[in-house]
Amino acid sequence: MIDVGVLEHLSCRVEYVKLLDRYGKESTIGTLYLTATHLIYVEQDNHTRKETWVLHHHISSVEKLSLTVSGCPLLIHCKTFQRLHLLLPRERDTQDVYQSLIRLCQPVSEDELYAFLYNPNQTEAERRDGWDLIDMATDFSRMGLPNEFWDISSINSSYELCSTYPSLLGIPKTATVATVTGSAKFRSRGRLPALSYYHKDTKAAVCRCSQPLSGLSSRCVEDEQMLKCINDANPHCPFIYVVDTRPKLNAMANRAAGKGYENEENYPNIRFHFQGIDNIHVMRSSLQKLLELCALRSPTMSDYLVGLESSGWLRHIKSVMDAGVFLAKAVCDEGASVLVHCSDGWDRTAQVCSLACVLLDPYYRTIKGLMVLIEREWISFGHKFNHRCGHLEGNPKEVSPVFTQFVECVWHLCEQFPCAFQFNESYLLIIHDHVYACQYGNFIGNCQREQQEMRLRERTFSLWPYLLQNQAEFQNPLYKRATHNTVLRPSTLPLHFKFWCGMYNRYDKGMQPRQSVVNTLLALTLRHTQEQKTMTELQRQLAVVDGILPGPIGTVSLPPDQNGCPRTTPTTSFGQSNGDCTSVSTCAGGKEDSGLEMSSQKEAEGSSATEHELQTKTDKPVSMVTQKEKVTESL
Amino acid sequence: MIDVGVLEHLSCRVEYVKLLDRYGKESTIGTLYLTATHLIYVEQDNHTRKETWVLHHHISSVEKLSLTVSGCPLLIHCKTFQRLHLLLPRERDTQDVYQSLIRLCQPVSEDELYAFLYNPNQTEAERRDGWDLIDMATDFSRMGLPNEFWDISSINSSYELCSTYPSLLGIPKTATVATVTGSAKFRSRGRLPALSYYHKDTKAAVCRCSQPLSGLSSRCVEDEQMLKCINDANPHCPFIYVVDTRPKLNAMANRAAGKGYENEENYPNIRFHFQGIDNIHVMRSSLQKLLELCALRSPTMSDYLVGLESSGWLRHIKSVMDAGVFLAKAVCDEGASVLVHCSDGWDRTAQVCSLACVLLDPYYRTIKGLMVLIEREWISFGHKFNHRCGHLEGNPKEVSPVFTQFVECVWHLCEQFPCAFQFNESYLLIIHDHVYACQYGNFIGNCQREQQEMRLRERTFSLWPYLLQNQAEFQNPLYKRATHNTVLRPSTLPLHFKFWCGMYNRYDKGMQPRQSVVNTLLALTLRHTQEQKTMTELQRQLAVVDGILPGPIGTVSLPPDQNGCPRTTPTTSFGQSNGDCTSVSTCAGGKEDSGLEMSSQKEAEGSSATEHELQTKTDKPVSMVTQKEKVTESL
Repeated sequence: MIDVGVLEHLSCRVEYVKLLDRYGKESTIGTLYLTATHLIYVEQDNHTRKETWVLHHHISSVEKLSLTVSGCPLLIHCKTFQRLHLLLPRERDTQDVYQSLIRLCQPVSEDELYAFLYNPNQTEAERRDGWDLIDMATDFSRMGLPNEFWDISSINSSYELCSTYPSLLGIPKTATVATVTGSAKFRSRGRLPALSYYHKDTKAAVCRCSQPLSGLSSRCVEDEQMLKCINDANPHCPFIYVVDTRPKLNAMANRAAGKGYENEENYPNIRFHFQGIDNIHVMRSSLQKLLELCALRSPTMSDYLVGLESSGWLRHIKSVMDAGVFLAKAVCDEGASVLVHCSDGWDRTAQVCSLACVLLDPYYRTIKGLMVLIEREWISFGHKFNHRCGHLEGNPKEVSPVFTQFVECVWHLCEQFPCAFQFNESYLLIIHDHVYACQYGNFIGNCQREQQEMRLRERTFSLWPYLLQNQAEFQNPLYKRATHNTVLRPSTLPLHFKFWCGMYNRYDKGMQPRQSVVNTLLALTLRHTQEQKTMTELQRQLAVVDGILPGPIGTVSLPPDQNGCPRTTPTTSFGQSNGDCTSVSTCAGGKEDSGLEMSSQKEAEGSSATEHELQTKTDKPVSMVTQKEKVTESL
Repeated sequence: MIDVGVLEHLSCRVEYVKLLDRYGKESTIGTLYLTATHLIYVEQDNHTRKETWVLHHHISSVEKLSLTVSGCPLLIHCKTFQRLHLLLPRERDTQDVYQSLIRLCQPVSEDELYAFLYNPNQTEAERRDGWDLIDMATDFSRMGLPNEFWDISSINSSYELCSTYPSLLGIPKTATVATVTGSAKFRSRGRLPALSYYHKDTKAAVCRCSQPLSGLSSRCVEDEQMLKCINDANPHCPFIYVVDTRPKLNAMANRAAGKGYENEENYPNIRFHFQGIDNIHVMRSSLQKLLELCALRSPTMSDYLVGLESSGWLRHIKSVMDAGVFLAKAVCDEGASVLVHCSDGWDRTAQVCSLACVLLDPYYRTIKGLMVLIEREWISFGHKFNHRCGHLEGNPKEVSPVFTQFVECVWHLCEQFPCAFQFNESYLLIIHDHVYACQYGNFIGNCQREQQEMRLRERTFSLWPYLLQNQAEFQNPLYKRATHNTVLRPSTLPLHFKFWCGMYNRYDKGMQPRQSVVNTLLALTLRHTQEQKTMTELQRQLAVVDGILPGPIGTVSLPPDQNGCPRTTPTTSFGQSNGDCTSVSTCAGGKEDSGLEMSSQKEAEGSSATEHELQTKTDKPVSMVTQKEKVTESL
C-alpha cells in the first residue's frame, strides 16, 4: 500500500502505535511515519484505512508523558489547535520520534522551511504572475491614490528610512522629505506615520505608525509637522484622532525608556485616546489558558464559564473589536482621520487598522479583498510572522496569536453579519492554517525587506493564486454584495462574543460544527437550489416529451445561480453531514462529522484505499490538499 | 386618533410620560393608558407614532423608584422579559398607575382572567372543534395504544384516584385495579406510575409518577407490583430504570418526611439513578440572577461571563437536558423502560419526560406535535400553571420558570439540529408568551380537574387552533422531515449551551436577533426560492413571447416548494432587516430591529396612523395579535 517513494524519504516508521481520543480513552492502532515534511499516522482495521497528516511546521509542542502500562505516550499540540495523543510500544522509538519532531517542527534556518521544497508544478511565468496577483500599488489606486491630498512615495524603496516598512508608502502631499525623515527618526524603529486606508467618501484616512520617542518631555518639530500634514490632508475635519491601542499604564511605562505617547500640548489639533489592548505576552498566556480549557475532558458548566472568563480571551477579542469600531466610527461618522499606534506598531496596530478596513470597506469582505488587506496591513507593514508564529527556533516569548485574534474578530463579524462577507468560515481557517504552514512564501520573514533578501518571489510560491483558484470552496452563498459603501456597525456587547468552536475545537469529533449554523444552512441552501434546478429541468424535459415544448432547439435556459455557485459546492462535506443531521449516526458525532474537519484526515474504504497511497512530498504537500481531495472524492 | 370605545374602558390616562431606554437615558414622550386588559404607551413625535401594548397578565412586577428631577419613575418587569422604564410627571398619577397595575396584573379570582373576556368571534361549534383539536387519546393511538402490553384506562375518569392526573391513563395491561389503586396510595398526592410515552420500535416506555411514600423503610407491595408490571410490559429488557430527577441530598431529606425514593432492594429489577436537577426555588432565584445580568447597562466581558456562571442558569438547563438525554438513550439504545419522578412529579418530571419525547420522536418536533406534547405532559399531567406562572395573587414562592426551561431546552435542540424541527424560534416564543397571557384557556388552572371545574371548554377558547391557523409564521423552512424514526443525540458539553438572547433580551433594541443566524438565513432562503420561481416564470413567459413555448394552454408547472412555504413568509420582518444587514441603519440596531421584536410594538408613519387606532379589548386582545398585524402590514 505504501508508495516506495515515501519509504525512501522516511526518517522514521513505528508500528502498533495507538492514537487516543480527547478523553485519552478509545484508541485505534496504526503505523506512524515521519517524512521530511509530515507526520503521518495510518490507522488500519478491517474496514477502514484512515490517514492523519500533520505538517511538521504545524506542530507547536511535543511532550513525552510518563510511561503507562499500555505504552509510551507522546502528546503533540499543533498551531492549528489539533492535538494528537499517541502511545508507542517502545520507549526507544518514543525518544527517537520525540527528538525528530523537536528538530523538524522548528528548523534553525529559513532555508529548511517547507516553502523552499514545495513545488506545485508551476512554470516560472505562473509563479511570477502568482506573486504579482496582489500588490499594494493596485490597492492604493483602488482607494483613489494618488490624489490632491495623498501621494504614493517611494522614499522607502531601499528600506533605508524604515527597515520594516514597505517600499511604497502613502504620505500626505504636503509632507516634505525633511518632515518625513525627521518624523521617522522620532518614531520607534523608524516606523513613521503612513497611510493605511483612505476613505474616499469622507476623505478621512487611517494612518499607522509606532510610538513616538517622546520620553518624558522630548518633542520633534518634524513629527509634529507630519501629524499636521495628515490633519491638513482631510479638509472636512479640523482634528485627527491619535489612538494608542495600548493600556495607558503600558504606554506610561514606556516613557521611562524614552518612548511613550503623544503629548496633546505639543501636537495641535489631535484628540488622543487609549484603547487598552494588552500586549503579546498577555495574549499568548490568554490563548494558553483557553487551550487548557478546550482540553478539559468533561468540564462542568461552571468550569467552562469560569475558565472562559479567567482565560480573558473574549475580553481581549472584544478590546480589539472595540478599537476597530472606534476607528470606523471616527472615519465614517465624524469624517475624522485617525493615526494609530501601539509600541512598535506591528501587532495591535495591524489588528486594529485591518479590522477598521473590514468595517469600513465592503471590498475587504470579499475573497480577494481580504488577501489584499492581509498583504498590505500584515505582510507589507511588517507583522513579524517569523517571530509571532515561531516558524524557526527562537525566542518563545516572541510567539503570540496576534494574527489569530484578527481572524477571530473577522469571524465574529461574519456571525453578526451573515450576508456581508463573500467568504465563509473555511476561508478564515485555511488562511490561518497557511500562515503557520510555511508551504507558500507569503508568511515567511518578518517584513518586506527580509522577504526580498530571501528572494521568496523566485524561490517559493504565493498562496493567493491557490486560494483564488479554489475560491468555490470558500464562497458564502448568502453573500449579498453591498451596492454602496456600507459600513458594518457590530454590537460589541459581551453577549455577542462567543467561543469559536470551529477554530479551537475543530479537530474534536462531535464538537463541531453545529455552532456554526451558517455552514449548516448554506449547504442546504445550495442543495435546495440545485434540486430546484434539476426539477425545473425535469419539468422541461417532461414538456418536451409531452410535445408542449420543442426539443433541443430553443431550450428554456435555467435561471442563473445568483451567487455564481458551482454545482460542486465547496461545503459538500458539510452538506452530507447536515443533510442527515437528524439521523442517529450524525447526531452521535460519528463518521460524518469527520468530514467537517478542516484537514488532515482521510478515510478510504476497502479497495479504494489504493487511491490514497502515501506520496512524495512534492505531490501531497500539506494537509489542506488532502482535505481538498477528500471533498472532491466525496462528491 | 383614539377610539371612543377605548376611552370608555380606560381606567387611567396620563400625558407627558417618558419611556426610557435600557440605559435609562434616551427617552421618548407619550401618553400612558390603562385599559381593563392592557397598558398602552403611545409615543408620538412629528414623524412617528409608536404604540407599545403590554397585557396586564404579562406584568410580573411594578416598582416605584425614588423620585428624580425629571419625574417619578415606574419600572415594570414582564414575564415575557420586557422591561418598561417610565417617568411620570406627577407623583399622584404614579401612585394611581402603580396601584392599578398591582391590582390588574394579578387578579384575585380566576374569573377575572383575560380568557373569560376574550372573544375571537367564533361560533360555539368552532370553539368546541378548537378544543377537540388536540387530545390525549389520539396521541395514545398514534403511539400504538392499546396494544398487547398497554391499556388506556379510565380508572381516573372522575379524578378520584389522583386529583391532579388526567382522566385517561396509560397503564400496563397486567396491572390490576388493586395494584393501581395501591400504588397510587403509596405515591405523593396519588400520582401513580402511568405511561408518558410508548416507543413503538423498542417497545420501551417512559412512565412518570411522584415520589414514593417510602420514608426510611416503608414499602408497598402494590407499588412494587406496579413497577414489575411496567417491567413486564417491555419484553426486550429485563430491567427498568427508575430516574429520580432530584439531587440525591434533596431526595434523602424527603425521607424524613415519609417520602423519598425507591429502595433497590425492595423493587426487583430496577436500576436507580439520580439526575440532580434543582428545585423550583433554586430555578426561580437563578432566573432572577440571569435577568439582573440582562439588565446591566454596560457589563464588561468579565461581568457577563461571571454573571452568567453565578446565575447558574445554563447549568440548570444542562441538567435538564442531561436528564432528557439519559431517558432517550435508555429507551433507544438499551430498549429499557424508564420510570421518572421528582417530588410531586409535576415540574422536573414534566420537563424531563417531554424533553425525552422531543429527542425520541420526530412527531413532537412538528408544530402540531409540540402542541400534543404540551397538552399531554404539561396540561393533562397537572403542571401547576396557575401557581408556576403566578396567574393569580398567591404565594410568590410557588412561581418558577419550569416551563420556560423546557422551552429553552427545545430551543437549544433547534440550534444544534437546525433541520430537525418544523417550527422556528418564534413558535417557541409565542407559546411561551401565551402561557403567561391567559388569553386562551389552555394554561389556566393547575390540573385537568380544575380546568373542568372552571368549564374552560365552554367559557374560553383554545390557543392551538389559533397557532395552527397561523402556522405559516412558525415554519422552519429548513425543516427536513425525518423519513424514519430518528433520535436526536445532542451534545451536552458546556460549550454547546449559550445565553438565549432571543428570549431574555428580545425587547432590547440592537441586541437581537443576530445571534439566531437560522432566522437570518431562513428569510433569505425563502426569498431566494421566491426569486427563483419568479425567474423561472419569467423565462417561461419569455419563451411564450418568442414562440418557443405555447401560450396559456399547456403551461409548464413550476416545481413545488419543498417546504410548502407560502409566498408570504412568516419571517418577513426578519428578512427585511437582514436583507439590509450590511446597511448602516440596521447595523445600528435601529428602526429595522424593532420589526424583530416578538410583540407589542407597533409603528405607523404619519397619516397611516389611523389604521392603528386603539381598539376595544375584544378586537385587539394581546400584543401577539398586534405583532401579527404588523407583519402583515409590512409585507
